[in-house]
Amino acid sequence: MAVGPGTLPEFFPIPGVRLGIGSAGIKKPGRKDLVVFELAPESRVAGIFTQNQFCAAPVNVSRQHLAQRAPRYLLINTGNANAGTGEQGMKDALSCCQALASAAGVDATEVLPFSTGVIGEPLPVDKIVSALPAVVADTDMGRWAEAASGIMTTDTRPKGASCQVNLDGHTVSISGISKGAGMIRPNMATMLGFIATDANIAPDVLTALASELGEESFNRITIDGDTSTNDACMLIASGQYSGPEITSDSPLLPTLRAALKQVYLDLAHAIVRDGEGATKFVTIEVSQAASQQEALDVAYTVAHSPLVKTALFASDPNWGRILAAVGRAGVAGLDLNALEIYLGDVCLVRNGGRADDYSEERGQAVMDREEITIAIDLKRGAVMERVWTCDFSHDYVTINAEYRT
Amino acid sequence: MAVGPGTLPEFFPIPGVRLGIGSAGIKKPGRKDLVVFELAPESRVAGIFTQNQFCAAPVNVSRQHLAQRAPRYLLINTGNANAGTGEQGMKDALSCCQALASAAGVDATEVLPFSTGVIGEPLPVDKIVSALPAVVADTDMGRWAEAASGIMTTDTRPKGASCQVNLDGHTVSISGISKGAGMIRPNMATMLGFIATDANIAPDVLTALASELGEESFNRITIDGDTSTNDACMLIASGQYSGPEITSDSPLLPTLRAALKQVYLDLAHAIVRDGEGATKFVTIEVSQAASQQEALDVAYTVAHSPLVKTALFASDPNWGRILAAVGRAGVAGLDLNALEIYLGDVCLVRNGGRADDYSEERGQAVMDREEITIAIDLKRGAVMERVWTCDFSHDYVTINAEYRT
Repeated sequence: MAVGPGTLPEFFPIPGVRLGIGSAGIKKPGRKDLVVFELAPESRVAGIFTQNQFCAAPVNVSRQHLAQRAPRYLLINTGNANAGTGEQGMKDALSCCQALASAAGVDATEVLPFSTGVIGEPLPVDKIVSALPAVVADTDMGRWAEAASGIMTTDTRPKGASCQVNLDGHTVSISGISKGAGMIRPNMATMLGFIATDANIAPDVLTALASELGEESFNRITIDGDTSTNDACMLIASGQYSGPEITSDSPLLPTLRAALKQVYLDLAHAIVRDGEGATKFVTIEVSQAASQQEALDVAYTVAHSPLVKTALFASDPNWGRILAAVGRAGVAGLDLNALEIYLGDVCLVRNGGRADDYSEERGQAVMDREEITIAIDLKRGAVMERVWTCDFSHDYVTINAEYRT
Repeated sequence: MAVGPGTLPEFFPIPGVRLGIGSAGIKKPGRKDLVVFELAPESRVAGIFTQNQFCAAPVNVSRQHLAQRAPRYLLINTGNANAGTGEQGMKDALSCCQALASAAGVDATEVLPFSTGVIGEPLPVDKIVSALPAVVADTDMGRWAEAASGIMTTDTRPKGASCQVNLDGHTVSISGISKGAGMIRPNMATMLGFIATDANIAPDVLTALASELGEESFNRITIDGDTSTNDACMLIASGQYSGPEITSDSPLLPTLRAALKQVYLDLAHAIVRDGEGATKFVTIEVSQAASQQEALDVAYTVAHSPLVKTALFASDPNWGRILAAVGRAGVAGLDLNALEIYLGDVCLVRNGGRADDYSEERGQAVMDREEITIAIDLKRGAVMERVWTCDFSHDYVTINAEYRT
């Protein structure tokens, strides 16, 4: 299941970014399981990675390579996460980088590897190595849609976003793809996300944007609270457009940032809409909190409550479960008589109990929608945070009970 | 579903403790939904209550009354939690205490009220008040099994434990009952638990035991991570036996404590075994941790992981999910090459990856069992903690999607 239409946009090609797609037969013969990004030499790349301490070998290698050189290639494989694979996993990730580097005539440190799929299985290096030359030899600017499909695992549909923005007379294009449907509670990154623009962005600005935008989008979604071992989100600036370099004091930065943020949000939301078994797209908004931490604590406690998520699946306005989740979020000194909880535009809780004007009919009307907002006004401060999640359905259990069969 | 036989024990009656059961038709006509504990005047009572800030009206009233007087009566109703009911909820809880007090000829502050059931509905006070006199007039020492059934809600079976222990020639009896199957991650208490002994325990010792034993048992179980608004666990010492008072320096205290702890554990485990949709009883043991906090962080992260719980439901030794959960538990500076993860007696993870001697067959053999231990050895310190949980099945979704229908 999935929420909303979820059709891919028309992708604007990004000058300086060419894509290659191939099949190494990692999990299933013939399945497209390899995607290669080829970047122009002037390109700059910044990224954020999972904070899971059992982070995968490709995450470690990508971090190291990113610190050494400006990347020329990104190599993504699905079907195997190369996580929980110890020393051999590191060797395997480096072997794949070396194979691509040899085929492309660059150094292995100019290649960033990314893997997604099952944890704990050895990476089938030979299959990948033998499939790479053909992929590298056949890259193209127009393959964003293919690439979006090429990085899917349990996703039921490809995820992409693309837009153009005018910077002082210069048209800048932004295109991005992401994947992920389960083991989704990104912590400093999403399952996998790749966003590219032909804007020419100063290194410090690019690094700041990659971190800030990831925090405001991918780091505000959760499907099951399980942080992946392989999360990574990369922001690529190919610098091919004719405009000036965007620096931290550039008057054009806010416009570019807003355009990039919309692409980040679209990609992050697309992951939630395609959450395993998802039938609802839920926005949890916590307002008037005393701190960002308590706002996020309340939002994630509600977003992760199996009781709230199963009530959403049933379209049951069982507001007592939301109240109970808020009450156990660990916020000291909550004023229960002051705070208010809303389902859409319907007030559920006021003065410590059910709002006088609440009726089951009004709550049901909101719950019957496919997109629902749960708003919690703590009446304690000035901080507001939003988190996006989905419901908890039979299909989530089915998908994850049968994942390896 | 439920794990294990779950038959009730033979209850040893507790001199000084008489039980009454009745039907007020709170949710369903004719259903036994009222239980009354009548305590001898010499009885002492200590208890712990939920830390959910949206705690129910009866929890607040019980806390207040317990602070004022030695209780003579405990009044438990099912079918309605009287939680999220604001000021009216407090009035309703007090009205029920007053009605019982009038029928029994005691003061309302000598009555402790407990409620469990749906949150946010007004308590049907009239039904309870009219049913109470008959219940109070017909109490008996031999009704523990009836009482265990009388406090059930979504439970599929009653829960009880009972034993006798010899204290320096004096036989002391201990009997207890509990209930709960969902919204179970007790925080300072379980859904509802009542343990009584005829031992004569000094007030300070009783208070310490109620807190320590609750922490070591009910506060180490989780079904869905949702802390109820109504949790309460009461320890009753009727003081009717012929032995000496048990003080903090009494040589008999360790023996009595051990007997009480076994009853607490049996009752706590019975809740997990009857977890909503449970098909597995899972012990998560974290050893060689540097602190209790990190041991519990790791244990609960694994215990709450929907991916781990669905793998358990599928009897799938998908150890990568356990590894990923440990990695996201927020323990700083984990030595991934030192720590070890076991499924039963089978080592899953060693040297940062799959243990050399692991085989899918050996993992499967453990997973096929109904009772499973996941052991995580952090190799960092000397602290060990255990948490008990169950798997996550289709029935959990069904039960909670249809709870109010």
